[in-house]
Amino acid sequence: MSTQILLPRWLIQIETREVLTGHALVIKQDRIVAVLPVADAIARFADAERIDLPEHALLPGLVNLHTHSAMTLLRGYADDLALMDWLNDHIWPAEGAHVSDEFVFDGTQLAIAEMIRGGTTCANDMYFHHGAVARAALASGFRMMVGCSILEFPTPYAADADQYIRRALACIDEFAGESLVGFTLAPHAPYSVSDATFGRVITLADELGLGIHCHIHETQDEIDDSLRRQHGVRPLERLARLGLLDSPLIAAHMVHTTDAEIALLAQRGVHVSHNPASNLKLASGFARIADQLAAGINVGIGTDGAASNNKLDLFAELRLAALLAKGQSGNPTALPAWQALEMATINGAKALGWDDRIGSLEVGKQADVIAVDLSALGTQPAYDPVSHLVYAVDRNQVSHVWIAGVPQLVNGELTRFKSAQLVANARRWQARIAPR
Amino acid sequence: MSTQILLPRWLIQIETREVLTGHALVIKQDRIVAVLPVADAIARFADAERIDLPEHALLPGLVNLHTHSAMTLLRGYADDLALMDWLNDHIWPAEGAHVSDEFVFDGTQLAIAEMIRGGTTCANDMYFHHGAVARAALASGFRMMVGCSILEFPTPYAADADQYIRRALACIDEFAGESLVGFTLAPHAPYSVSDATFGRVITLADELGLGIHCHIHETQDEIDDSLRRQHGVRPLERLARLGLLDSPLIAAHMVHTTDAEIALLAQRGVHVSHNPASNLKLASGFARIADQLAAGINVGIGTDGAASNNKLDLFAELRLAALLAKGQSGNPTALPAWQALEMATINGAKALGWDDRIGSLEVGKQADVIAVDLSALGTQPAYDPVSHLVYAVDRNQVSHVWIAGVPQLVNGELTRFKSAQLVANARRWQARIAPR
Repeated sequence: MSTQILLPRWLIQIETREVLTGHALVIKQDRIVAVLPVADAIARFADAERIDLPEHALLPGLVNLHTHSAMTLLRGYADDLALMDWLNDHIWPAEGAHVSDEFVFDGTQLAIAEMIRGGTTCANDMYFHHGAVARAALASGFRMMVGCSILEFPTPYAADADQYIRRALACIDEFAGESLVGFTLAPHAPYSVSDATFGRVITLADELGLGIHCHIHETQDEIDDSLRRQHGVRPLERLARLGLLDSPLIAAHMVHTTDAEIALLAQRGVHVSHNPASNLKLASGFARIADQLAAGINVGIGTDGAASNNKLDLFAELRLAALLAKGQSGNPTALPAWQALEMATINGAKALGWDDRIGSLEVGKQADVIAVDLSALGTQPAYDPVSHLVYAVDRNQVSHVWIAGVPQLVNGELTRFKSAQLVANARRWQARIAPR
Repeated sequence: MSTQILLPRWLIQIETREVLTGHALVIKQDRIVAVLPVADAIARFADAERIDLPEHALLPGLVNLHTHSAMTLLRGYADDLALMDWLNDHIWPAEGAHVSDEFVFDGTQLAIAEMIRGGTTCANDMYFHHGAVARAALASGFRMMVGCSILEFPTPYAADADQYIRRALACIDEFAGESLVGFTLAPHAPYSVSDATFGRVITLADELGLGIHCHIHETQDEIDDSLRRQHGVRPLERLARLGLLDSPLIAAHMVHTTDAEIALLAQRGVHVSHNPASNLKLASGFARIADQLAAGINVGIGTDGAASNNKLDLFAELRLAALLAKGQSGNPTALPAWQALEMATINGAKALGWDDRIGSLEVGKQADVIAVDLSALGTQPAYDPVSHLVYAVDRNQVSHVWIAGVPQLVNGELTRFKSAQLVANARRWQARIAPR
């Protein structure tokens, strides 16, 4: 790959909360090698390819901190249902009948293409058939943390916790050394994983240097059941006693938190993935994100799966997070634009343990970069590009995407996917899942 | 205009909650003249122009039930502020210095272009310089209910309530007989309008056969002030005593409602405009929309102005309404997809008193029609087009728009606007308002 000089109108520096104008970003191979005034860039890298972005904001690629990528194939399959009807009568039967390596590969590719088109360059996944997830990411050059689901219940993928764990370890071995793909152990949730299995997960994560990704406190029912019927304590307290909070942990959802729990999460350095659209759609509740951020918790943003959202649109999600934090806290100054952008970039990177390589446009980091064209009618006038990125842009205004320096989207066109093929695949699965 | 046969994959019938396939919609002049099987349409209208929409859902144009169109020119000018700081220190000074016929015409044209591009064919506006609003609508062929603001406070537009009313009446006279444009009297809010002025508005609305459009119960502060300091009762009770609820009334926001108030609104046939993004952004609160709908209140959806949203995207707004109703009520079956679509179409039409002419694809109605291309990656697979229209589409998937039979958007291109000119105008205003 040649050296690329990106010449945006605005260069968004997450780490300093600065908007630079008249500056260029230089990519060499897979890395950002310079951020400097335009004239200096052109002088110093005279032979480089120049990419003019005269109406564009340049920012780090967004990090989707919680998703089940392959569930794109169940997008809009069942909506407007109570959670347990939705799972028991629709989602789990469909998954039981159809989820396979092929389903996961195709669904994950569709998700990756949708995410790249909308400015997301990295996702923290949690699903089954982990090898297919990793292969889909590598085939398309997408950065993916693959969460290896572990639970007590049998699925076509594994019979019990022991088998889920063995499959996870085999997969982690298989893809060792791949720079774009990492792995977490993903015990599904407190209500679906036993104390003994959590114990094994903690030990393995420690031995192998892995992070842990788990749904925690998504619903009030989950907390009530743990407290009254299963364990006599709230799930977070149980997990703390088991030692889970001593591992690098991403807690997905964390909708219901007491003041003491917020203090505990902050003190133990637990990362939270806030998934506002899914939490609303399933009526899980309103997460106290403004309070969690104020306490110093590292909170990122996730879309959850397409079956409960129904789009993998991180720009929509960060806008919703910023709006909802104001409504939930009753404070219109809560979660201002810069903080929302941080959540969707550097906070996500930190949660993955990848803030040394992604999450901001700093020299030495991987060139995961996106350009957003603000000349559209919906972002005119443009007093403040950061406000527009949070409150006004549509994801189709993302014009260019680079992942590890590779152009993935150029002038709105995907370079590594044939859209017609993805659509044909999606239709083939639709015909199998819901024959009419 | 020739006869046009529209041949969509899915034809969305709001009034029966049916999705027709294999059907055509026929437009002659400004009206829908037939909805019938494709073969019959082609036989009966052999000479008509055919518009193939093989991947598209066809539905009535969306109705934006509460906006301040011209405020597009203040989009992103000030965010993340407390309401009174936002108004007193930013919005009102900028309006005082810059709002003029020219500002309102340019800002309204930008808003109309943005709305048409996103599938909105009708808006219920409330602002100043009403003549400029009407001229902007007529110049672009957009359907607009122009709300003539009336308040006690002086602005550059008028010195007192009497002058606002005189200007409103002159404007209503000037545009009498225009089929695309109607007028409401728009007393701004209970806290900015006296009992005497409300009395005059009620009398005039009755004499002239006009509807009334008013901000009501947007914030808890407004209610507390009325109760404790100004009137000794909550604003809605005061307005009921004054007789306002006996006129055709659109109550914008209605965030805070007791059970008794919901019953009163239903009983008196008050229409509500729910503006979920603005209510979140300004931390006004969570409207009890599921309860209001269950009580039989006619609730439509509005974007509010671009200064407090910051986009005029009714697809985003109806999605947010559907999600938020579930979160607010704790019931994931609240506000299902069909009901959300009704709110953004026929309910808005009813609130304007225009349900005889718009809001559904019925023979005899005006041809305000939009086509949405569901072949994008973000709406694949497509088990249910109605689910996708509410939960998954981006507004840029709107490919075609007709207003009164006139093609306003064809294959994603605006026919009546030059985007470059709108952008240049917006930049000129930005340079005046925030010179840097």
